[in-house]
Amino acid sequence: MACVVVVYHSVAGHTKSIALSVAKGVSLVDGVGVEVLCVDDVPAFDAKVHQPAWEMLNNADAIVFGSPTYMGSVSAAFKAFMDTTGSLWYVRRWMDKLAAGFTVGGGLAGDKQSTLQAMQVFASQHGMVWVSMGVGVGEKGIDRLSSSIGMMAQADDGPTEETPPKEDHTTAEHFGKRIANATVRWGTA
Amino acid sequence: MACVVVVYHSVAGHTKSIALSVAKGVSLVDGVGVEVLCVDDVPAFDAKVHQPAWEMLNNADAIVFGSPTYMGSVSAAFKAFMDTTGSLWYVRRWMDKLAAGFTVGGGLAGDKQSTLQAMQVFASQHGMVWVSMGVGVGEKGIDRLSSSIGMMAQADDGPTEETPPKEDHTTAEHFGKRIANATVRWGTA
Amino acid sequence: MACVVVVYHSVAGHTKSIALSVAKGVSLVDGVGVEVLCVDDVPAFDAKVHQPAWEMLNNADAIVFGSPTYMGSVSAAFKAFMDTTGSLWYVRRWMDKLAAGFTVGGGLAGDKQSTLQAMQVFASQHGMVWVSMGVGVGEKGIDRLSSSIGMMAQADDGPTEETPPKEDHTTAEHFGKRIANATVRWGTA
Amino acid sequence: MACVVVVYHSVAGHTKSIALSVAKGVSLVDGVGVEVLCVDDVPAFDAKVHQPAWEMLNNADAIVFGSPTYMGSVSAAFKAFMDTTGSLWYVRRWMDKLAAGFTVGGGLAGDKQSTLQAMQVFASQHGMVWVSMGVGVGEKGIDRLSSSIGMMAQADDGPTEETPPKEDHTTAEHFGKRIANATVRWGTA
Repeated sequence: MACVVVVYHSVAGHTKSIALSVAKGVSLVDGVGVEVLCVDDVPAFDAKVHQPAWEMLNNADAIVFGSPTYMGSVSAAFKAFMDTTGSLWYVRRWMDKLAAGFTVGGGLAGDKQSTLQAMQVFASQHGMVWVSMGVGVGEKGIDRLSSSIGMMAQADDGPTEETPPKEDHTTAEHFGKRIANATVRWGTA
Repeated sequence: MACVVVVYHSVAGHTKSIALSVAKGVSLVDGVGVEVLCVDDVPAFDAKVHQPAWEMLNNADAIVFGSPTYMGSVSAAFKAFMDTTGSLWYVRRWMDKLAAGFTVGGGLAGDKQSTLQAMQVFASQHGMVWVSMGVGVGEKGIDRLSSSIGMMAQADDGPTEETPPKEDHTTAEHFGKRIANATVRWGTA
Repeated sequence: MACVVVVYHSVAGHTKSIALSVAKGVSLVDGVGVEVLCVDDVPAFDAKVHQPAWEMLNNADAIVFGSPTYMGSVSAAFKAFMDTTGSLWYVRRWMDKLAAGFTVGGGLAGDKQSTLQAMQVFASQHGMVWVSMGVGVGEKGIDRLSSSIGMMAQADDGPTEETPPKEDHTTAEHFGKRIANATVRWGTA
Repeated sequence: MACVVVVYHSVAGHTKSIALSVAKGVSLVDGVGVEVLCVDDVPAFDAKVHQPAWEMLNNADAIVFGSPTYMGSVSAAFKAFMDTTGSLWYVRRWMDKLAAGFTVGGGLAGDKQSTLQAMQVFASQHGMVWVSMGVGVGEKGIDRLSSSIGMMAQADDGPTEETPPKEDHTTAEHFGKRIANATVRWGTA
């Protein structure tokens, strides 16, 4: 069974809610399992210690990165997660896994593209293969922000039941399904 | 048989020489064919006319983009090629193909990363899946510029027999092989 | 008198309409003149010929770049303009001028940030100094797309009287004023 | 007297050594003072407490950002510094200050451009005005990596007396001088 891990950071809960919708989309595809991991629950990597979170990540066939956009890039907590993978990068541990990314911000464009690009460069450093959003211009009710590198959601300053809006969750589910299908096609190593 | 198309622009011949080395790398993998196409030989896309270059591109399982870095991005001629794919983008014609990119410039860093990012955004708009360089830090004689999104070569103002140096051609071949292997693994549509 | 040149490319007229609003904003500041130039009227640069468009650009204190977002970056026509400045770049002709940029696209985010980044890298190659959008999060009726590097407008497929919406023109005017004030502060060379 | 603050993060000392060379360059220009600040000495921002580091930053006419390139962007520690400026961003406290950036990495290109772009987006969110590297192609003994957005240095895994090489320190000094001259020209607010 192929395995997709969604690893995210969230402060107000909006990015977490999108992470769960991406995971729901993944789970809709037969033969693909999904795990959701908050970076708060991922310790600094230590090769000498048994760390279930890192075992999960290292065994994944695809990893989906999710972070709010803070000051034009991933949050510091998400960057700390990225930086601690340095020793895995050194030994090419994530080589050839699939990767994808999503971000949530308060603005419509709001520099969310540079957040996704930071994830894309990071995944490339690991030698991963990047799955894009893949939604066309004519598709209604989905990808309202017109993002292509990864998935974007926009959240107001309100409760997660209300914001991001339903369309962004539909988009996240669609994105999760796409990643799961790509994982099946790519095959397990 | 899987098919990889390398489509490039070249003025002084340096990018062409790297394109040929990428193609050579592709050809070393069993079960993968390769075609090399200069954008000068690609007419504006017209769905009503039989256009062999576009048939080649549209039937490819993977497309590798190559351009010199001019003023911090792809050359205008390569951008014209990108723009004329707009109607293919509209009908999602390249959806789920593999993509990769390389660039050649005069400087060591020299804003080549933004050229590769322009290709990566372009490929994402088409819904393609991006294959990174995939070379680690410890590998000698390869990827001397330490690029991760795609392949970078550096050329002096000299004949193509001398520049880019041999190491860049080795890197290009390695990159071609990686893309060919990924194409086999991803499978034909 | 300080001089700002707005140089743009436009096909359907939307980017032209925003260029004119940026220019209007510039013209509201005392002591600053403004010229508007379409790249269709800018010939390939030739140092041996008297070319009024290039004289205008070379004498400017600030240059504002404007392009639609096509396939995730500036249009090919705008890129051709960028590329033909290579010989000016070589002699550092635009060194220390102010620069700024705007783009128009059909989507809300829509990869417009990578278009502005291409302009920003280009301006940096020339040694220019980049003026950001400069609008805060609390300011109503302006910068509806939340762009920070430069100015973003969003246009539907309709007449320029209707789209981009009024708010985008207000934003463009505000941006023009900001650039003009920066030009006065920076001073003529 | 105009004031430039260089704020950096460094682990092995290489980025610190470049920060000092940038600062030395600034100090060579009459009428400009310079302060050097390590992010380890910058506490989380708190408007209700007297914090000398933040007073220094908030009173600066220009701020130069410096970080190693870790996993394709600024280090997590530098990102934490960026994120804690959110409340200053909200009140536009750094609006119209000059900004510039430098980074140090182990590779020649090595995704250092995306680190500088993260700084550039960050500065734009604050409404700052960005000073580019400004070195031309013909200038020998300087800018060996051909960077244009900001300053790049390359360090091997060795002592700071040996790496980055002397040319990178010369480049850093030149960059500091350029920023100082721009600060004088831009004028104090």
